[in-house]
Parts: sequence; C-alpha cells; structure tokens
Amino acid sequence: MWFRSSAGRSAARLFATIYTKSGMVPTLSWTEDGVRFIDQTKLPLEESYVLATTYEQVAKIIVTMVVRGAPAIGVSAAYGIALGALKTKAESAQEFAPEFEKICARLAGTRPTAVNLFWAIDRMKALFAPLAGSGTPLDEIKHRLLAEAHAMYEEDIAACRTMGAFGGALLPKEGGVLTHCNAGALATCGYGTALGVIRAAVEQGKQIHVYADETRPFLQGARLTAWELMADGIATTVICDNMAASLMRAGKIQAVVVGADRIAANGDTANKIGTYNVAILAKEHGIPFYVAAPWSTIDLATPTGDAIPIEERPQVEVTHHAGKQLTPNGVGICNPAFDVTPAKYVTAIITERGVLRAPYTDSLREMELVAG
Amino acid sequence: MWFRSSAGRSAARLFATIYTKSGMVPTLSWTEDGVRFIDQTKLPLEESYVLATTYEQVAKIIVTMVVRGAPAIGVSAAYGIALGALKTKAESAQEFAPEFEKICARLAGTRPTAVNLFWAIDRMKALFAPLAGSGTPLDEIKHRLLAEAHAMYEEDIAACRTMGAFGGALLPKEGGVLTHCNAGALATCGYGTALGVIRAAVEQGKQIHVYADETRPFLQGARLTAWELMADGIATTVICDNMAASLMRAGKIQAVVVGADRIAANGDTANKIGTYNVAILAKEHGIPFYVAAPWSTIDLATPTGDAIPIEERPQVEVTHHAGKQLTPNGVGICNPAFDVTPAKYVTAIITERGVLRAPYTDSLREMELVAG
Repeated sequence: MWFRSSAGRSAARLFATIYTKSGMVPTLSWTEDGVRFIDQTKLPLEESYVLATTYEQVAKIIVTMVVRGAPAIGVSAAYGIALGALKTKAESAQEFAPEFEKICARLAGTRPTAVNLFWAIDRMKALFAPLAGSGTPLDEIKHRLLAEAHAMYEEDIAACRTMGAFGGALLPKEGGVLTHCNAGALATCGYGTALGVIRAAVEQGKQIHVYADETRPFLQGARLTAWELMADGIATTVICDNMAASLMRAGKIQAVVVGADRIAANGDTANKIGTYNVAILAKEHGIPFYVAAPWSTIDLATPTGDAIPIEERPQVEVTHHAGKQLTPNGVGICNPAFDVTPAKYVTAIITERGVLRAPYTDSLREMELVAG
Repeated sequence: MWFRSSAGRSAARLFATIYTKSGMVPTLSWTEDGVRFIDQTKLPLEESYVLATTYEQVAKIIVTMVVRGAPAIGVSAAYGIALGALKTKAESAQEFAPEFEKICARLAGTRPTAVNLFWAIDRMKALFAPLAGSGTPLDEIKHRLLAEAHAMYEEDIAACRTMGAFGGALLPKEGGVLTHCNAGALATCGYGTALGVIRAAVEQGKQIHVYADETRPFLQGARLTAWELMADGIATTVICDNMAASLMRAGKIQAVVVGADRIAANGDTANKIGTYNVAILAKEHGIPFYVAAPWSTIDLATPTGDAIPIEERPQVEVTHHAGKQLTPNGVGICNPAFDVTPAKYVTAIITERGVLRAPYTDSLREMELVAG
C-alpha cells in the first residue's frame, strides 16, 4: 500500500497484472503492494506466499531461502532495489544516491556464491549512475529502476525458454534424466534452466523420466523439483543423493542436467553441494553431464572455480529436520551450500546464446565477444 | 522370566552377567529374560532398550531395524533360534524339529541382503541336525543352541578386534577417514568392523578425524556412527552424503573404510546404499577404499555382485522424517537399502583372517582353503 502516495504507483499497477502469469509457477511476482514470493521453505506441503514491502524484507527472504536459485535471487535483488527506490524519502537523485549504495550493499551481502545476484545489482547500478549524474528527476529514476527489474524478469523467462530449445535437443528421445537440486521454475522467474531443458524435451515429444536427487540438506529436489514436475505431469522419481551411482550402473540414467550458480572463465561450475559428486559418477558411467544456465551466471572475471566463494550455511540445516534433531549434541558438522565441478566433467554448457563445448576458456570468451 | 522353569536357566544366568560388558556399546545382550537390544531407531536422542522374549519378537526387531548391521543381525538371529528352542512346548528333539525349521525360516525371511543372517542360521542348523538325529535330549540341545549363539557373539567381538589390528595398520598416521553408514559397535556385538579399524588406528596412536556420511535415508551415520564415536572421544564430523567429493578434492580425506553386508566370490561388495558412490569418488581422487568385514560376510557361493539380492525398503523411509512428510504426494520413490561396489574399486578387504588384495577371486579362495 505504501506506494499509493509515491510516484511509482502507476508503473506498479501496470506491471502487477502483466507479471502474474498463468500457467507458470509464481516464484516471484511484482504486485501493487510489493514483491510476492512463494515460500519455498514450506513447499510441497503448503503453498503459501510472502509479501516483501521493503528491500530489507527482500534481503531476509533471500537469506532464509524463501526464494533461492541463482536466476531467481538475481531478479529478486533487482526488485529489492526498485522497492528501496520507490520507498525512499529522499527528494532528489543526489540525496538518494548514498541510500541507493546502502540498499545495493545490503542485497549483495545476502548470499556469496551465485553471481547472478551481483550481476543484477551491477546492472541496476549501471542504470542508476548515469541517470543520477545527469540530473534525471528521482521519480523518473524510480520508474526506470522498476522497469529494469521487470525487464530482467522477462529476459530470464525468455532465456530459460531458449536454453530449453537448445538443451532439449541434446536429451535422448527416450530415457532417464537425473537432476540435482532444483534448477526449475522455482529457481528462476519461470520455466527453469535444467528443468527448462527437460520441459522443452518433453514438449519436443521426448519420453523423459526424471530422477530427482532429494538434495540434502535443504531437500530442494525432494520438495521443489518433485512438486513442480508433478504439476506439469512429467514422470518423476525422487531418490536419495546416494542412490545415483547404482541407478547409473543399472542403466536407468541416460543424461544428467543441472543448473549453476556461477561458471568461471574456464568452465568450472559452482552449483548446489553434491553436483560435483554427480559429475564424477556420470563420467565413470559414460553419461553426458550438462550444465544449463543463463549468460548472467557466467563470470568471466573469475578465472577458475578455485576463486569462487563457497557459502557455508547454518549447521542446523544438517542437524535438524522440521525441528527434530538428527545428530548427537556437539558433533562436528559441515554445511557448504555449493561445490565446484571442474570443467573437465562438463559435457556441454547450455545457455540462451547457444551450447558451448570444451575448451570452455575459448568457447566462453568467443561467445562473449560475438553476443556481448 | 519364561526360562525360570526351563533347562536353559542356569546357562542363561551365567551368560547374563558375562555378556553385558562394560565399556562396550550394548548393541545386543543375552539376559535372564531374553535378548535385550538398544533401540537403534531412537538413537542418538534416546537411549532405550527393547527386550525380545520370543523368536518372533527378534524377527520383528530385525525387520524394523531396531537392530541392524550384518554381523549384529546374524548373532541376533542365532539368539532368536535359541530363544525359540528354550520356549518350545515340544518334549523331544523329534517333536521340536518342524518347529525349529519354522523358526529358522521366519528369521531367514527378515532381511535378504546381509549373508551373515543366513550364515548364522545355517550354523545353528548344522549344530541342531546331528544332535537331533543322534537322539540327544532336547534340554541338552537347548543348552547347546544357546551356547552356540554365545560363541558367535564372542567370536564376532574377537573378529572385530583382529580386523581392527590388521586394518588400523593400513590407515595413515594422521588424516581424515571417511566412513559410510554405521559399521561400528552398533552393527556388531561390539567394537565394529569399519569403526573397529578406526578405533584400532586411534589405539595405535594415529591421529584420525572421522568424516561420517549421514547416510540417507535411515541416517545411520548421522545418528549411530556419530553417537558411538563421540562416546569414544574420536573426532567426528557429520557430512551429508553429497559433500564427500568436495571434501576429497579439498584434501580432507586420506582413506575410506566401510563395512559390508555380503562379499561375492569375486570381491564385489554389497553394502549400504551409497557405498558404490563413495567408492567411485575415492577412485577418482586416488584415495584408498577399504572394506572391513568378518569372514561370515564372505559368500563364496555367490559368484558376483549381480547375484546378490538387494532389499527394497518401505518408501516412507525416504518420504518422511519423524512423521513429517518431505515429498509431494504420489511422486515416485526409490529406496534400495544396498548397492554393489564392483571389486575393481576395492583397495583391500580387511577380515579377521588377514588383509586380502585383488584379484579377489584368487585371494578369497586361497584364504578359505588355508583357514577354512
């Protein structure tokens, strides 16, 4: 309700209807009252929504993983910045500038690994700086920031669709496809990266049976991937992470497709913890291992995976489930949220610009020059 | 109380004190009133005990995994048979023989993969048949069956100690050792197989840090391995199963030691689901992968791992935790309790008869001829 008295009102109203699409999982959407998120910590048993009316609330929603998935948190941060702008009490761009920096810093501090977050914030900064510098009225800047967030939202869905078309063609006509974590509609603004590839393959008429790693400790596979694939009527079996090798040996898996949180210049790929395990198992069984990610996940400024910061999450995610303690008091716990899969395990990287093959140092740089 | 009026009473009394050892985890123990089991489904938060006073109760305790671990369920079945004999209303061996067969069949039907179960039952049968055939009084047969179960119990602990001595020498002077599931005191009558190797290494003065795979879905690592190693003051960190590869890549793991449920004549090893994953990861990182198991786990009648029956456990173990549902209704679920690690991934098999190396078809057969 806050922006009824702000200049952002009409823009907000306009997009509120456009961006609540039917037939897509409502991962996040702009509404008259702020940014609405499906609460991914509650799925699949409860479909509930959280409304962020301040940038600080968006930040907390990212930290607590109410929204997660590299592309989704990038766009969430962009909306968070737009919210911050729309709610400012500043009366000029000059007055707003330090607050803008503070908003950006707060959102950048939420999670360290997914580069899409920083990419989105940098894009908002790149829009803001020249506008503020050229004396553009603050009301217009607010409008432009919100429009930029909306553009990223739309681009994200379009990128997923394009990735799907490219990647769907790589999957077998019939067979089992293993995925890890949730790189689906819930990790993006819609359609998904890895699950977009699977959706596209199914739309292309392929007979795909998805094996979804449950993905401890947060269970994104068991909870989220299963939920959204079942909603689409795609055959899905949930397995514990440690069952993948025996399924591969039994000939049940013909391809692996995963998402990514950051891809270094040499193709090393940070993704949800356990992805590296799956990549090794795929290699050992001669199964192709595909990474699907929008170009915003590619970080040419990071030379190799060794330079990617890996977030350590709270121990309670491992030690407890639904309030019930699993481990003895005082035992040591590891909880890295991500791991790095060296480029040599990656059969191809599927992006909206095309499918890239090794050597990735060359193919990524060339694609950046051509399309960038 | 039931055997106060039976011939087994004095033997039972005698062993009741002997077999409740101090300083050992009370996995199972013979008491005046029957077989007492620590309830492994309740650990680590609750240390409670279940008393089986009939063979049927022993069978249910095995099925529901109140007791688990290949060596432990073998000895449990032997005690179950002894219980059945002590409680029979038959008045002669001839009258008891069909009931004895029924008891053995019930216990053999509890779980299919661990060969120790069938080994123990066969050993009880091999004792019973000539005694019954030679007209031995039933009271003496009861006594002998109980004594045989006690002997297996003692032999199991002794085998673990000897395995420990052999295997402890293989571990590095200092470093991280990964184990999967629980092949500890709780999986045996005491000391453990894989954890016996670790305990022995620590007793040999080695500086070992244990990384315990939590081992979904039953969480034997997070719950049981962590509990018993902490009780012994051995440094332990619990990890999710999908974190092993990144720890290996980071140089934190110098060796892997696991137990086994059945080892085929060619060295293929059935063990808790996820063991095969770990074996591949170890190979990929050049880390030795050791299997520790008593000779009763070796099944020379099974030529390769392909012939080992793999138990499929109830889906609810994957879909729920502590009564809380994790997955959406109706999604497909896999829950194989075991997988098979092909012999080529096994660096050595540690038994109480010695350490065996590839080619296992030869080394296992030779060891059987020498020691058998």
